[in-house]
Amino acid sequence: MPTTEPAPRIAVIGGGQLARMMAQPAVALGVPLRLLAEAEGVSAAQVIPDQLVGDYHDLATLRTVTDGCSVVTFDHEHVPTEHLRALAADGVTAHPGPEALVHAQDKVVMREAMSRLGAPQPRWAVVETAADVEAFGLPCVLKVSRGGYDGKGVWVVRTPDDATEPLAAAAAARDRGVRLLAEELVDFRRELSALVARAPSGQAAAYPVVATLQVDGVCREVIAPAPDLDPGVATGAQELALRIAGELGVTGILAVELFEEVAADGTSRVLVNELAMRPHNTGHWTQDGAVTSQFENHLRAALDLPLGSPEPRARWTVMVNILGGDDPEVGRLYDGYPHALARDPRLRVHLYGKDLRPGRKVGHVNVYGDDLDDCLERARHAAAWFRGDLGDESE
Amino acid sequence: MPTTEPAPRIAVIGGGQLARMMAQPAVALGVPLRLLAEAEGVSAAQVIPDQLVGDYHDLATLRTVTDGCSVVTFDHEHVPTEHLRALAADGVTAHPGPEALVHAQDKVVMREAMSRLGAPQPRWAVVETAADVEAFGLPCVLKVSRGGYDGKGVWVVRTPDDATEPLAAAAAARDRGVRLLAEELVDFRRELSALVARAPSGQAAAYPVVATLQVDGVCREVIAPAPDLDPGVATGAQELALRIAGELGVTGILAVELFEEVAADGTSRVLVNELAMRPHNTGHWTQDGAVTSQFENHLRAALDLPLGSPEPRARWTVMVNILGGDDPEVGRLYDGYPHALARDPRLRVHLYGKDLRPGRKVGHVNVYGDDLDDCLERARHAAAWFRGDLGDESE
Repeated sequence: MPTTEPAPRIAVIGGGQLARMMAQPAVALGVPLRLLAEAEGVSAAQVIPDQLVGDYHDLATLRTVTDGCSVVTFDHEHVPTEHLRALAADGVTAHPGPEALVHAQDKVVMREAMSRLGAPQPRWAVVETAADVEAFGLPCVLKVSRGGYDGKGVWVVRTPDDATEPLAAAAAARDRGVRLLAEELVDFRRELSALVARAPSGQAAAYPVVATLQVDGVCREVIAPAPDLDPGVATGAQELALRIAGELGVTGILAVELFEEVAADGTSRVLVNELAMRPHNTGHWTQDGAVTSQFENHLRAALDLPLGSPEPRARWTVMVNILGGDDPEVGRLYDGYPHALARDPRLRVHLYGKDLRPGRKVGHVNVYGDDLDDCLERARHAAAWFRGDLGDESE
Repeated sequence: MPTTEPAPRIAVIGGGQLARMMAQPAVALGVPLRLLAEAEGVSAAQVIPDQLVGDYHDLATLRTVTDGCSVVTFDHEHVPTEHLRALAADGVTAHPGPEALVHAQDKVVMREAMSRLGAPQPRWAVVETAADVEAFGLPCVLKVSRGGYDGKGVWVVRTPDDATEPLAAAAAARDRGVRLLAEELVDFRRELSALVARAPSGQAAAYPVVATLQVDGVCREVIAPAPDLDPGVATGAQELALRIAGELGVTGILAVELFEEVAADGTSRVLVNELAMRPHNTGHWTQDGAVTSQFENHLRAALDLPLGSPEPRARWTVMVNILGGDDPEVGRLYDGYPHALARDPRLRVHLYGKDLRPGRKVGHVNVYGDDLDDCLERARHAAAWFRGDLGDESE
């Protein structure tokens, strides 16, 4: 029989809420984390004792934080892939690895890969000039290939004038390897997300496909599973996400953000919008709504352990983000608890240890149950209450 | 509308697995913990960044760790009540407070209170001499009033000779306020546990009554809810636990350990065995089996926030402890994962970051589902596998 081996230490790069929420299953699994945080006291640094403050662009810093760790994973997708190759040469394996991660870092590389795989996606092209944009056709969406997030670096272009700012932004960043991507403006019914976990062994687990509501490029609500989704389309989306994870060699969580497009005959299909290779906002519902959360399966995958079941635990689970409201002076985080918890003893709250600022994600709530309308009402009410903005819902 | 207030900091005294498991809901609630650990690197010290190593018997140390905290709570029940009164004078409230806590520290004080409340309990007396023990009647159970745990400080006495050791042990500790308690040896059907959370507001929540299997005074298994328990007895046990919590002014989690005694006519009743005032081994199933875990409700109670629902999320939840086996050289903690997780994708594992030693609690597993036999088989198999001791269950 084997003797006890100490659990391997996992380095986590980036101190945001995704790293913070990895800490909870790490406690249960008995797996120590070592954090590289951007600054003292950031979200994950509040809850992971073994930490270093430093810059993830610096290879020496990455070597220091991963010393004694067998694997490294991420709160975000921005670590330079050449540094991950250097760490691999040192014997520290990144999950996801650099060959996979580049598809989450560079949207043009991602589009090229989707074309190669024959994955359904919007028509796209790399553009450099106003003439290129006109030739592509308006309206369209322009995106910088690297560095955009939460709606930043994305422009909807309806007139030639609308293209001036993105063309200039991309030109100014060209020497940093940034290209400008034009995409067909899809007239979608809604956005969906297909989340999978994949281990280095090749084992993979697909969560139910969810519907997501994005406002100004920021995720606001998730409904799991997506209501009224054709079962064939749902299965197809899971298969697509599993195939992308396998073909790109993703390890850890992969979120495939999708557009659901409905044809004139009523049939619907999905188109790949974005890829994310880390626990994802559209998977936060799994903390309370699935047998195994995306955060636990991300850690299990990083350690090449068997994955946990992605099955839902309730008929419906709704996640609503808590964002800072428009008035920076007003907020209800901790002081929102007495009402929110008394009104709904089944409410699940997840705060990130961040100050409220307008538009900033500072937490989310999960509500599960048999009645979707009831779940939506409860989750929306609580999130609005925490941000101090009940709008017309006052009671 | 109120402006944002920072979340109050909670001091936690004691660095064992109970404090460790408070860290998970503290992350979700956005509530910072400050830990007083017995030594560097103990179970909770691995997962709570804000920590101090020191001796909880020392008031100055307690003052240092609670400085800037509004409340203090506990991993164990051993902090001297006079220190808690001193902290209260400083403005730091203990949950539970000293007036309640003494009932979990001193079994004679507890028995006196149960008599006062008219709570059903075994016949008992304080004894000092062999003659007292004979007068009480044999067989009986002798217990030191203070400092026993997990079966230590408890003796089953069947002959006058059996009383020699406990009488000597109590006499030696008399100057530390230790008395010797004699209790009727109850011929019980099984042990039950009624767990409640109670907030300073007076709000309380009762978890389903569970059946517990104790071996040599150590909790081995819990089944939630207790199978085949008369509904009237179950409700009565919950009401009893709520009444004890209210009458003693408990804040936080109270576990009332009970004997179920069956009369000749088949009717059963419960007798109070022990009280614990902290998250309790018989409540670990709530982490995966209830809407709100005992650890989260303990923190909510300490902050006087509304309590979360104690409802079960599954028909059955089984908890089995992982204990070190007899051979100190053999163990399967981290290296037990590949088999245990692959065999059961729904298994929930909680390890405490402790080395395996014979008889030591190093973790537990939770399994939930509709079929109790299936849950028991899965949980027992996994716990045996982790301790490297499948016995006759090999497959």
